[in-house]
Amino acid sequence: MSRQGPNVPQVAAPISVCDRRGGAVADGNGPTLRQLGEFPMIDRLVAGRRQAAGVTVGPGDDAAVLIAPDGHVVVTTDMLVEGRHFRLDWSTPHDVGRKAIAQNAADIESMGARCSAFVVAFGAPPDTEASRAQELADGMWQEAGGLGAGIVGGDLVASPQWVVSVTALGDLGGVAPVLRSGARAGSIVAVAGELGRSAAGYLLWHKGIGGFDDLRRRHLVPRPPYGQGIVAAEAGAQAMTDVSDGLLADLGHIAAGSGVVIDLAVDQLRPDIEAVTAAAAAAGVEPLSLVLSGGEDHALVACFADAVPRGWRVIGTVADGTPGVTVDGRVWTGSAGWQSFD
Amino acid sequence: MSRQGPNVPQVAAPISVCDRRGGAVADGNGPTLRQLGEFPMIDRLVAGRRQAAGVTVGPGDDAAVLIAPDGHVVVTTDMLVEGRHFRLDWSTPHDVGRKAIAQNAADIESMGARCSAFVVAFGAPPDTEASRAQELADGMWQEAGGLGAGIVGGDLVASPQWVVSVTALGDLGGVAPVLRSGARAGSIVAVAGELGRSAAGYLLWHKGIGGFDDLRRRHLVPRPPYGQGIVAAEAGAQAMTDVSDGLLADLGHIAAGSGVVIDLAVDQLRPDIEAVTAAAAAAGVEPLSLVLSGGEDHALVACFADAVPRGWRVIGTVADGTPGVTVDGRVWTGSAGWQSFD
Repeated sequence: MSRQGPNVPQVAAPISVCDRRGGAVADGNGPTLRQLGEFPMIDRLVAGRRQAAGVTVGPGDDAAVLIAPDGHVVVTTDMLVEGRHFRLDWSTPHDVGRKAIAQNAADIESMGARCSAFVVAFGAPPDTEASRAQELADGMWQEAGGLGAGIVGGDLVASPQWVVSVTALGDLGGVAPVLRSGARAGSIVAVAGELGRSAAGYLLWHKGIGGFDDLRRRHLVPRPPYGQGIVAAEAGAQAMTDVSDGLLADLGHIAAGSGVVIDLAVDQLRPDIEAVTAAAAAAGVEPLSLVLSGGEDHALVACFADAVPRGWRVIGTVADGTPGVTVDGRVWTGSAGWQSFD
Repeated sequence: MSRQGPNVPQVAAPISVCDRRGGAVADGNGPTLRQLGEFPMIDRLVAGRRQAAGVTVGPGDDAAVLIAPDGHVVVTTDMLVEGRHFRLDWSTPHDVGRKAIAQNAADIESMGARCSAFVVAFGAPPDTEASRAQELADGMWQEAGGLGAGIVGGDLVASPQWVVSVTALGDLGGVAPVLRSGARAGSIVAVAGELGRSAAGYLLWHKGIGGFDDLRRRHLVPRPPYGQGIVAAEAGAQAMTDVSDGLLADLGHIAAGSGVVIDLAVDQLRPDIEAVTAAAAAAGVEPLSLVLSGGEDHALVACFADAVPRGWRVIGTVADGTPGVTVDGRVWTGSAGWQSFD
């Protein structure tokens, strides 16, 4: 919760309710971050929030303190940058908040853990309306609340564009974490959640194609299969990850980490292919490509020795061989997923 | 450790070793982040690092797993934005890395805890030289290593300017956290570490005044009194915080949180005043103002019932009254500290 001290010189920008920067438009509905100030803004963001039972010290001190019931803590972090990971002319601040929490939560789930808390660092231009920061926080609290977790601390700073950096903490409940390295030949690969939807939605937004409201929505706010990470761990999942970069790319990490070949069966991906076929046609792409290479749905994929638990469906098999991922026995020659610096 | 999936359209920038953006100049010494790619860059950042004993799962999976020995975990986060919190024409990437870790570590220390691990999200322009990201990580590891902790996970994304977001985790070792709310009338206020140095150094940099190398250095890399947070907690500190926004501002949080008046004695601040007197004269400011209002040194300030432990020096007293901070019994009318959105 600390702030920085004396620092680099700032260009003094006039306080105005009609400044425009980074999509955050002060339209007369209330004060900007500059007008309100950091501490009053933090007070607003924190006021009335209900912390989870395991939070010993919540926001308002130098750090938060949480119970770690089984003597371990799971931790992951993801940063979203405006213009790179979201656009404020597509997403509301509420959507951005939900997405930022969801993608971190999926990383915790994919270890076989439950989310216990989040901390959030948020940078925005000083002329951002305070109400928009509040909407962001509301979205975060809604998504986190669905997990039984809250936001226990954060930082609020000035930045040329919105930057949202979330760290999620998780609790394994006494079970061993499910790593990427445990897949064994002879096992099966299964998925919980959706594939290809976010990528389809992105293309629709990008090409300005209307309709397909569910898919376009799904790109803005993913729907990870919360709770299925623990289900998979309890069912003996050997290896697990979430689909953030694309099914092929993320299963590639399991294949590499485990030293195995994973083969996907297109027939078993039919439900996902069908869900994006019409949108893919409208956008002029192959639906299979969206399912194999589209990320950000934050489905969970895992390897099981034999049976898969309820909520999971089989999509492939694990074999010995040079580590990699094949599709119906062949190397996929289409797009392989998102790269950060392309 | 996950990355984002398909996303907003990017302007395709040419790969060039002479692009300039955000102070990160590719001068032919090696590949840029775009040329190297995210995963090979992460591999470089992670290679050869030695994780602490309590790290069950380190970098390379969806999340890290740490031991929380006493069944609690302390957590805090701070974000640094290029041009706002640091300048790459003043600081080396190594300096930025050290500062980012130090300011988070001080928040953990000020709870009476020790740092157990860090996660880092780093955003930078794609044409940033990979070697500069490596320097940033080296600085982080140096600072963290001095605390017996390491970096257990992170995220690496494209951003128009450098953004460094650190989350620190800490361990209380079975003692209760020291909050801001525990100060009682009749107690004494003490400090461990330095005051005013970073602010003096900032002014020297800002005004282009040479000499005073130690002070200018101190602005780039603070020197928190590592270990003194635990010392204070074990000595029965009632309340504690670190000086990130300025002594008056940060003690103001203790005064407000505890419902007390804190009075500082200028005579007891002499060592700090003397340390910045010559630089203050060169910069044309009052040295006392630097000591009272300069932040970012990340000294620790705490309230004790009577005696203070070794390494701490008394600077004031705690009394009943309308919550606030006075200086020699009077309200300070100078600058009160850093505000995020000024």
